[in-house]
Amino acid sequence: MPNPPLPPRVEAVVRAPNEAVVATIRPDGTPHTAATWYDWEDGRILLNMDDTRRRLEFMRRDPRVSLTVLAEGNWYRHITLEGEVEEIVADDGLRDVDRLCTRYLGQPYSDREHPRTSAWVRVTRWHGWDAAHPIERDEDFND
Amino acid sequence: MPNPPLPPRVEAVVRAPNEAVVATIRPDGTPHTAATWYDWEDGRILLNMDDTRRRLEFMRRDPRVSLTVLAEGNWYRHITLEGEVEEIVADDGLRDVDRLCTRYLGQPYSDREHPRTSAWVRVTRWHGWDAAHPIERDEDFND
Repeated sequence: MPNPPLPPRVEAVVRAPNEAVVATIRPDGTPHTAATWYDWEDGRILLNMDDTRRRLEFMRRDPRVSLTVLAEGNWYRHITLEGEVEEIVADDGLRDVDRLCTRYLGQPYSDREHPRTSAWVRVTRWHGWDAAHPIERDEDFND
Repeated sequence: MPNPPLPPRVEAVVRAPNEAVVATIRPDGTPHTAATWYDWEDGRILLNMDDTRRRLEFMRRDPRVSLTVLAEGNWYRHITLEGEVEEIVADDGLRDVDRLCTRYLGQPYSDREHPRTSAWVRVTRWHGWDAAHPIERDEDFND
């Protein structure tokens, strides 16, 4: 699979506030997936979770994650980013979830009660698919 | 997490031809994710892949998969189904991909050249999220 940096056409899909699903690994090795907000900054993915989310515990144990982003209005164009969580930090003041909520919904996050945590994922490889316009013609494209 | 059978409201989301992302496990234990078509029948998920897809090889090695389904028009309602691949079969005559393509696009699959394979996943547990109407109030809900 190709490595970063992302080509501009791929990065444009990732920069937009698109639907996404994140996969983490449970202690027993099974995959865990969930829909998630995310943001993209300097080659890293920002994820943010309520402190009670089990995937936070999974990431602390095994930092390897995968995020599939579906292009708005055409999920036949999708990008998958793979990498490792390199930083897990308390979301003091809920600034990160406000950033995500503003990105997706145009307003700060409404729940000010429950503590949250952010995870920054360093992207190490990616693969993509575009039914109309192949993104990358290499042997790993059909991933 | 709750076990099958799925409650009717959950099954309704899964029955619809919704966007979905499937996670498999690579030999090195990292998660692999990709957007996918799927169908639902008698507690099992039908997946179908070009024979060259690497996730097919991953499923043969480790049958544990997770599929997150995003409800159309509101991805703040999503269902995740987890289970194990219990059957992998050649898609003779491309009947299964025609079934999926008809479900999603209303017509048979256009590519008649490349061989494909189907995988049937027996669902053993699920979790869901609905921002507007909590689906299941149990300790595993916030998964």
